[in-house]
Amino acid sequence: MTSASDLDTPAVTVDLDVMEANIRRVQAHLDQHGIANRPHIKTHKIPEIGRMQMAAGAVGITCQKLGEVEVFTDADVADDVLLTFNILGRDKTDRLMALSRRLRRLAVVLDNEVVARGLSEAGAAHRLDVPFLVECDTGFGRNGVQTPDDAFDLAQTAMRLPRLHFQGLMTFPNRDPSTRIFFERALELFKRAGIPVRTVSGGGTPGIFTAQNFPMLTEHRAGTCVYNDVMVVASGTATWDDCAMRVRATVVSRPNDARAVLDAGTKVLTSDQYGTKGYGHIVEYPEGLVSGLSEEHAIVDLTACRERPRVGDVVHVIPNHCCVVSNMVDEVYGVRKGRLEATWPVAARGKVR
Amino acid sequence: MTSASDLDTPAVTVDLDVMEANIRRVQAHLDQHGIANRPHIKTHKIPEIGRMQMAAGAVGITCQKLGEVEVFTDADVADDVLLTFNILGRDKTDRLMALSRRLRRLAVVLDNEVVARGLSEAGAAHRLDVPFLVECDTGFGRNGVQTPDDAFDLAQTAMRLPRLHFQGLMTFPNRDPSTRIFFERALELFKRAGIPVRTVSGGGTPGIFTAQNFPMLTEHRAGTCVYNDVMVVASGTATWDDCAMRVRATVVSRPNDARAVLDAGTKVLTSDQYGTKGYGHIVEYPEGLVSGLSEEHAIVDLTACRERPRVGDVVHVIPNHCCVVSNMVDEVYGVRKGRLEATWPVAARGKVR
Repeated sequence: MTSASDLDTPAVTVDLDVMEANIRRVQAHLDQHGIANRPHIKTHKIPEIGRMQMAAGAVGITCQKLGEVEVFTDADVADDVLLTFNILGRDKTDRLMALSRRLRRLAVVLDNEVVARGLSEAGAAHRLDVPFLVECDTGFGRNGVQTPDDAFDLAQTAMRLPRLHFQGLMTFPNRDPSTRIFFERALELFKRAGIPVRTVSGGGTPGIFTAQNFPMLTEHRAGTCVYNDVMVVASGTATWDDCAMRVRATVVSRPNDARAVLDAGTKVLTSDQYGTKGYGHIVEYPEGLVSGLSEEHAIVDLTACRERPRVGDVVHVIPNHCCVVSNMVDEVYGVRKGRLEATWPVAARGKVR
Repeated sequence: MTSASDLDTPAVTVDLDVMEANIRRVQAHLDQHGIANRPHIKTHKIPEIGRMQMAAGAVGITCQKLGEVEVFTDADVADDVLLTFNILGRDKTDRLMALSRRLRRLAVVLDNEVVARGLSEAGAAHRLDVPFLVECDTGFGRNGVQTPDDAFDLAQTAMRLPRLHFQGLMTFPNRDPSTRIFFERALELFKRAGIPVRTVSGGGTPGIFTAQNFPMLTEHRAGTCVYNDVMVVASGTATWDDCAMRVRATVVSRPNDARAVLDAGTKVLTSDQYGTKGYGHIVEYPEGLVSGLSEEHAIVDLTACRERPRVGDVVHVIPNHCCVVSNMVDEVYGVRKGRLEATWPVAARGKVR
C-alpha cells in the first residue's frame, strides 16, 4: 500500500509536510525569544516524532506519565525529561528512580509536602538526587500552589528534605496577566532569600506565540502544536491549513436527507468538546455539523450543506482535541502529498500509570 | 499481589460478585419472558466475561466491530454472532467472509442498498450466504431505515440479491411507544407478503426490564448491564450497589480546601457525560462533584463534602459510561471481597475497524 486512499477506515493520518512546518515554526518562534522549547510528547506519544522535535532544537521533552517516560527512554529520544505530574506512592517512586539512573536529567514537579516527602525518601533510599519544580496554579484551577508565598514556602520545605533539589517554578497554561503577576511576586521572594531559580516553565499551545510577553519564562512546554486541532484553530493560534491530523472515515449510512453517519465515534474522535460546536470539523463538508457521537458512529447534520455525501464516500475529520485521539488508536499513518510514508505505532498509548 | 488495595492507580476494577449477579438477573428476566439474550460484548471486550454470559444462557453475542468478532471468534466464545454495524468496503467484507467460515452463524445488519450490494457481492465471490437484519430507526435518530415501508422495501430489494438471506428486523434502543408502533406496522407488511420474520431484535440496557412490553421482540441486546454505571443508575435501571466497575484513583493534590485532584482523567474516565452531572460518582465522597477532567487529572469540587480526602488517599469512581472506560485500559482487574481474583487483558480494546 503506498496511497493514503487505500487505508481502511477509520484511520488516523498525519500530514507530514504540515507537521514538519508546525515543528519548525514553534521552534523558530521560541528560539527568536530565547525561550527553551520542551515539547510535550503526550500529544503524539510517538518516539519518532519526539526525535524530530529534538532534532529541530528542543532542549528536552515533557511527559505527563511515568509510562510515557519509560517508553521514550527506551527509545532514547531525549536525555533531559520533565515529568509534570505529582508522583506519589512506592510503585511510582521506584519506577522514577530507575528512570533517573538512565537519564542525564529527570526533573519532576510537586505542589504539596506529601509528594515532596515521598520523593525525598525515594531519593534517599536509592541514593539519587531528585530535581524538582514547584507547580503553581496561576489561574487555571487544577494542580498547583495557590499563591506566590505558598510556592516559596513549599520550595523551602522541600529543599530541607534529603536529596530534593529545587530548580524552579512551573505552570500550565500561561495566562495573561495572572501568570506574570504570580511569577513576578514569587521570583521576588526567592531573590530576596538568595535562592536561585534556574527554570521558569510555562505551557500550552495557545500560549506559544505570546510566551515572550512573560519575560521570566526560561522554557515553554506545548504539545498540541505539533498537530493542531479544532480547539487550537478556535483559539486563533492556527488555521485549518496548520492542522496535520485527520480522522479518515466512511459514510456508512444516509438515513435521511439531512443526516449522514460516519464509522468513527468516541472510540476515535472522543467526546472532548472544550466549548467547540460539534465533535470535529469535516474537511470536505465544512458546513456539516458532527452533532453527536456514539462509540462507533458519528452523526452528521447536513442541513447547512449544499453538496451532500453518499454512502461509501470517505471524508476527513479534523478532531476537536488531537492529543486524546492519539490515545485511541494503535497506529498513526504519516502521509505526504497523498502517499503513505510511515506507519507509526503509538508506542506510549494507554500509559495511564 | 492478592489484595485489590495493592493495585497502583489508576486501575479499573470489576466486583465479581456484583457482575455475576448482574449477568444472572438479566438472563433470568429475559428467560421469564421468552426473549433470547444476546449480550453486547462491546461493554467489556473481554472473552472470559463473554463466556460467563454464554454459560448463563445467552443464545449468542452481539459485536459492533469486525475486530471484536475476530477477537471473540479466536477465543471461541460463541458460534452465533450478530454484528450490528453496516459493513462496507472490500477490506471489511473479505474479513467478514473469513469469519463466516469459522462461525455457525454470523449475521449482519444493513440499512441501505449500497451496503446490501457490497455484502451480496462478497457472498457471491466467496460462495457464502449472508444472513441479515434490516436496521430500523425507531426514534433514536442514528442509523436505520426511517419508516416501516422503507424496511419492507429494503428487505425485498436485498432478498433479490445473490447470497443475502433476510432474517428479521433490528433496532436500538427500544423506545415506548415508537418502537412498538414501527415494528407492528412493519411486521404487518411482511406478513401480508408472506415473508417470515424470524428475528426481531431490540436493544439497550435501560430497555431490558421493559422488553416484555414489546411483544414482537424475539431477542434483546444489551451491553452496559454487565457492569452498570452512572447513566444506568440515572435511568432507574440499577442502583449504586449494582455497579460492578470502579476506577481506583489517588488524590494527588489538594490545592485548596474545596478542591481535590485525582490521577484519573479522560484517558481513563473519558469525557462522556450523557446528561449526567460531573464525570463520575465517587463512592467514598458521594457529595464530591467531579467537575472537570484533563487527560490525566480529575478535578473534584468538595464544597458539599463534610469529610474531605487527603493527598495520598485512594478513592473509587463509578464511571458515567462503563463501555468507553473498558476501551481505555489494557487490563481490567476482577476483585471479590477485596481480593484480586483475575487480571483480564481487554482483548478487543481499540478495535476501531
